[in-house]
Amino acid sequence: MTSSYNVQHAPVGAFASFTLGSFDRRGGFASQVGRPGDSNLYIGYREGDGDLFLLPYFEAARGPDVPFGVTLSRDTRRRRVFGDQDIRRELGWASDTIRAGRLTLAIYSPFGPIPDPRTAPPAEVAARSCPALIARIELDNTGRSEPLTGVFALEAPSLRDLETASDGRLVGVAHGRRWGFAVRPEAGVRAFQAFSPEHAFDGSADRLFRLGKTGGLLIEVPPGQKREVWIALGFHDAGAITTGVEARYAYTRYFKGLEDVLSFALDRREALVAEAAQRDEELSRAALSPAQKWLLAQATHGYFGSTEWLDTALDDASPPAPLWVVNEGEYEMMNTFDLTIDHLFFELRYAPWAVRNVLDLYVDRYSYRDRVKRPGAPGELLPGGVSFTHDMGVSNHFSPAGNSSYERPNLDAACFSYMTYEQLTNWICCAGVYVARTGDEEFLERHGGLFTELLASLSHRDAPEPGARTGVMALDSDRCGTGAEITTYDSLDHSLGRARGNLYLAGKGWASYVILAHLLESRGDAQRAAEAKAAARKAARAIAAAFDERSGYIPALLDGGSTSAIIPAIEGLLYPHVMGLLDERAAGGEHGELVQVLRRHLSAVLKPGLCLFPEGGWKLSSSSDNSWASKIALCQHIARAVLKVDLPDPDRHEEAHVRWQIEGSGYWAYSDQMQRGVPVGSRYYPRGVTAILWLDEARSGQKQARS
Amino acid sequence: MTSSYNVQHAPVGAFASFTLGSFDRRGGFASQVGRPGDSNLYIGYREGDGDLFLLPYFEAARGPDVPFGVTLSRDTRRRRVFGDQDIRRELGWASDTIRAGRLTLAIYSPFGPIPDPRTAPPAEVAARSCPALIARIELDNTGRSEPLTGVFALEAPSLRDLETASDGRLVGVAHGRRWGFAVRPEAGVRAFQAFSPEHAFDGSADRLFRLGKTGGLLIEVPPGQKREVWIALGFHDAGAITTGVEARYAYTRYFKGLEDVLSFALDRREALVAEAAQRDEELSRAALSPAQKWLLAQATHGYFGSTEWLDTALDDASPPAPLWVVNEGEYEMMNTFDLTIDHLFFELRYAPWAVRNVLDLYVDRYSYRDRVKRPGAPGELLPGGVSFTHDMGVSNHFSPAGNSSYERPNLDAACFSYMTYEQLTNWICCAGVYVARTGDEEFLERHGGLFTELLASLSHRDAPEPGARTGVMALDSDRCGTGAEITTYDSLDHSLGRARGNLYLAGKGWASYVILAHLLESRGDAQRAAEAKAAARKAARAIAAAFDERSGYIPALLDGGSTSAIIPAIEGLLYPHVMGLLDERAAGGEHGELVQVLRRHLSAVLKPGLCLFPEGGWKLSSSSDNSWASKIALCQHIARAVLKVDLPDPDRHEEAHVRWQIEGSGYWAYSDQMQRGVPVGSRYYPRGVTAILWLDEARSGQKQARS
Repeated sequence: MTSSYNVQHAPVGAFASFTLGSFDRRGGFASQVGRPGDSNLYIGYREGDGDLFLLPYFEAARGPDVPFGVTLSRDTRRRRVFGDQDIRRELGWASDTIRAGRLTLAIYSPFGPIPDPRTAPPAEVAARSCPALIARIELDNTGRSEPLTGVFALEAPSLRDLETASDGRLVGVAHGRRWGFAVRPEAGVRAFQAFSPEHAFDGSADRLFRLGKTGGLLIEVPPGQKREVWIALGFHDAGAITTGVEARYAYTRYFKGLEDVLSFALDRREALVAEAAQRDEELSRAALSPAQKWLLAQATHGYFGSTEWLDTALDDASPPAPLWVVNEGEYEMMNTFDLTIDHLFFELRYAPWAVRNVLDLYVDRYSYRDRVKRPGAPGELLPGGVSFTHDMGVSNHFSPAGNSSYERPNLDAACFSYMTYEQLTNWICCAGVYVARTGDEEFLERHGGLFTELLASLSHRDAPEPGARTGVMALDSDRCGTGAEITTYDSLDHSLGRARGNLYLAGKGWASYVILAHLLESRGDAQRAAEAKAAARKAARAIAAAFDERSGYIPALLDGGSTSAIIPAIEGLLYPHVMGLLDERAAGGEHGELVQVLRRHLSAVLKPGLCLFPEGGWKLSSSSDNSWASKIALCQHIARAVLKVDLPDPDRHEEAHVRWQIEGSGYWAYSDQMQRGVPVGSRYYPRGVTAILWLDEARSGQKQARS
Repeated sequence: MTSSYNVQHAPVGAFASFTLGSFDRRGGFASQVGRPGDSNLYIGYREGDGDLFLLPYFEAARGPDVPFGVTLSRDTRRRRVFGDQDIRRELGWASDTIRAGRLTLAIYSPFGPIPDPRTAPPAEVAARSCPALIARIELDNTGRSEPLTGVFALEAPSLRDLETASDGRLVGVAHGRRWGFAVRPEAGVRAFQAFSPEHAFDGSADRLFRLGKTGGLLIEVPPGQKREVWIALGFHDAGAITTGVEARYAYTRYFKGLEDVLSFALDRREALVAEAAQRDEELSRAALSPAQKWLLAQATHGYFGSTEWLDTALDDASPPAPLWVVNEGEYEMMNTFDLTIDHLFFELRYAPWAVRNVLDLYVDRYSYRDRVKRPGAPGELLPGGVSFTHDMGVSNHFSPAGNSSYERPNLDAACFSYMTYEQLTNWICCAGVYVARTGDEEFLERHGGLFTELLASLSHRDAPEPGARTGVMALDSDRCGTGAEITTYDSLDHSLGRARGNLYLAGKGWASYVILAHLLESRGDAQRAAEAKAAARKAARAIAAAFDERSGYIPALLDGGSTSAIIPAIEGLLYPHVMGLLDERAAGGEHGELVQVLRRHLSAVLKPGLCLFPEGGWKLSSSSDNSWASKIALCQHIARAVLKVDLPDPDRHEEAHVRWQIEGSGYWAYSDQMQRGVPVGSRYYPRGVTAILWLDEARSGQKQARS
């Protein structure tokens, strides 16, 4: 397959990426935006006085843009651009290595446990939050009798050299105060600014023409030698950067400017590269297929590019007050709750405190109490309860308390309507898994009182009369006005878009009752735990009862209003499963009927014409061409780890999913919402880290193999 | 003429503009860049439920860009866009009024004396530095029986509403934390965010859809009524924004955020509008032609849009440490010295302390000492002396001490070479005029010791042997390497581009000697004053002696290397003139010969085929199509006020100069470097305020009329 695709090389929590890889497109540094950078990148080398060889990471060459209405002496040498046939690329979990001609470029974006700033030593927080990447450029001039000059440069406005600002401790260039790249001074490596990369080779002793909007590094390699240079790529966004809730980046407590960031990264280069290598090794050893490894690696880069590790304490004298945000890719919505639940497993692995941080803020600022209404009875308002907003704001603007940026009234189960029921289940499922994994008693204590409310709120959305309840959502929030609620599959048809009586949501409702029963029990509230258990049983029954023997699956809307076949029917199983509430004997235990019926469902729908695309690849709904890549990864895990279904032709499907990302998304790095393999939305997206669940399979798989 | 042209509506010293007026183009807010904003502006109204009438300040309509791969209900109403025939526009010195249909939009950018932050009361500094404009929108719904809804909105990323952030004290929208607009709450005025202006009228009770990238104000006007609304347009760039020398905006000491700026401007609205009206009145009453008034008004807007009023004291506890910067329009070079001398007269009127501030920094950080070289004798280095860099940096990056961002070695009198001699004369002329106008003894005291050095430096660039000196520059700085110096007319041919033996520069050399003689005399250094006087006489003689009786003018290069006719021969006269060193009897006094010969020169060259374009308009050099509008204004003043030449057909020429700006520059507001009336560089430029000198003429003209 082509190596022409972007990867979001991103530090942890800076909402910043150095994006590179898509042929003939701009890329490079960008921060505080959900799209690739806008720089032509000039990375390559010149052999002696000959042609300039460059990687194809810039837009089709125009002449260099020289201002002042003058013509500079034209460089008659040609640019030779490496093509797909010349380039070998290897994407690791925390590295990306590109080889072409005499050049090897490796970019490392190390990640690992993210410490809680309230309890961890400041040095640890500084090291992890430092908004920098490390790149290694290697130039092989062996077997040649001429010198070779490497170039690592880009085009951007407001460039400056870093040598001046760092008193010679850094050699490189920066864009304003916001991003830049540098090496430590060493012989034969110089920074330049010029009108074009060709002008950098004009033989002038003084290569720093500060009006030039092309800037970077020139690396001299003597004849017959090989040389490697380490480059730090860093970001710095100072001061309060959000509104609504004012916050700054956590790293600004430790790094006062871009120069600090770059110096720190260069000083810690070995540790950074070692950690990246450790992640690469972990993924490499995992019992996953090459396609699965690539998907998880690409998704992980996208996730970190969307993360925002903030501190609401604006002065350094106050103790850290962390605030964790994941932006919704190109949409830039903040902590979108129906993404939070999907990031959950990745975050529990690397930053459990961040999961709690988001759940706490959902309770404190982004919860609301509503009433509910029956369809077709607009005047009648029934008791509702607590739920949570779809998101916390957009583009670094926290929305007012109790309001998302996304949800709008008066939309009949269309995109932008409310997701009240879904977000209610999301809080419950996240909290349950969080507590099960961390044993955080303080969290349980703090939110214990809410559990009763959550149970009531779920039940009220079923039916006002306890006797009439089926365990399934049947009433819409009055926040919808004349409209009706939707699910996270907002751009789908009613098979997944409508919330009421939806099979997917029924599964998450069931899971929420199961989890609430468990939490209430552990708090000693046996009565309400029993109530929740009963509701779970009802929900399971309602799902099972809707099974249609003729079609062999459960219709998307339990009332038969949509008979589409949908894969996310099985999503809800995941949360009780990872909490250990679906035991080994699941098929025969308390939830046996549900597990069995969903296994039959999945086996029936995973067929061409229903939930498989002709060319391979999973189709979340039989009646829509929209499919969400992150959700496929999640459901694959459930299919294998919970339902233990023998998936048909897994390699072929996974390779199709890789093609969606490389041939479909390409420029947009990891994308989620795919229409026949081409992203129509949710581009440059963080949600693909649901694939982290595959590693758990691998582990249990290995255990099984060993046993 | 068309009303389709941009004006940089700009507060004082924020490097920020709200640019509007060019049809079918984007514009609006932009700060820290030398170009118009990038927003579609939607300003107009809807009559009842009918069509939307808009001013033509947006790009040719595409459909509204709705993300999420969904289609919203299409609005079937049409946009009706006002055309040139519908729009009446009136540009005042500090206001811009646009009338179309039922709409009147007036934007006020008041200016006046700018206080010195080190001595003025903080409240005065706060008021003047507040980075805001005031706009008035009037909607006339008289004679109609339907309501009318006005709209003032734009399209931009990262929009947010201001109501939330200001606890309801502001109604409006902002882009991030950096700019926005708002009104005080009043009945019938609401902020909105939507995917398109049409969506704002969708009848929804909730008009704040935070995902929408179109945002602004809706203004309800009842049937039969007229309504006016006052809108503050503000900017806020927080924290250190420069490098090399770290500085923040002076206003950040008084305004902690955008909300503060907008509130302050709305509270002071009446005073702001009154001051704008006062400036408008002054210009309106001036004895200038309508074309002259328009040019000065347009130039003044451009000047303020490029100003940057900084403070190097980064914490509020330290006393203000002001730093004045004027950016070089689209080039963004800082305090370019060959612009500083042209801004001099405008700045002496409104901010004399800023002139001193820049001159001080040129001495303290941007002076250097060089040696000089004879043409054709590269190995021989002769004593040089002190001079100054071309600029102080670019794009908010102060360049290293002693270096500009522009000047490059090894260029043979081509663009980007050194301007050592010219910048030396610029410091002397600026300092002389500054002292003469302000009587600043402290400045004299501080730099007194430098005067001797300046004289030596001028002389050394003439010839090493005192006996061989002609008063004219003949040696290039060794900073040029193998190259040769140029003048501010860097994109011209050698008629104005080459420094050595250049008539234009000879005039400024003469002026520098005259001024130094005066300054040295006033410091009691009679011997060196006499030396300077003698040099001035030599320079005058050299210029006069080069007069070519056959052509009737002095050739551009005194040695005859270029026989072009150039207008800027007369530039040097200005500085001694405004210092009162060319008295009424100039023609008969000490400088009589020079004045007479330059009068003959100008009268001879101001002819079609030489220094007039066929369609009217001044041509600075007979051998180039490049002309600088700001320099024309300066030379016109000298012609009238010093040489008292009867200018041919002045109204026709000035109208041509207006056409250059409106039809040629248009989108770029005021531009300077014109090639046959179309800007090829120096766009969006501050230098046009040389036209302020015309007001002095008018005054002396009025006096003459009275006497």
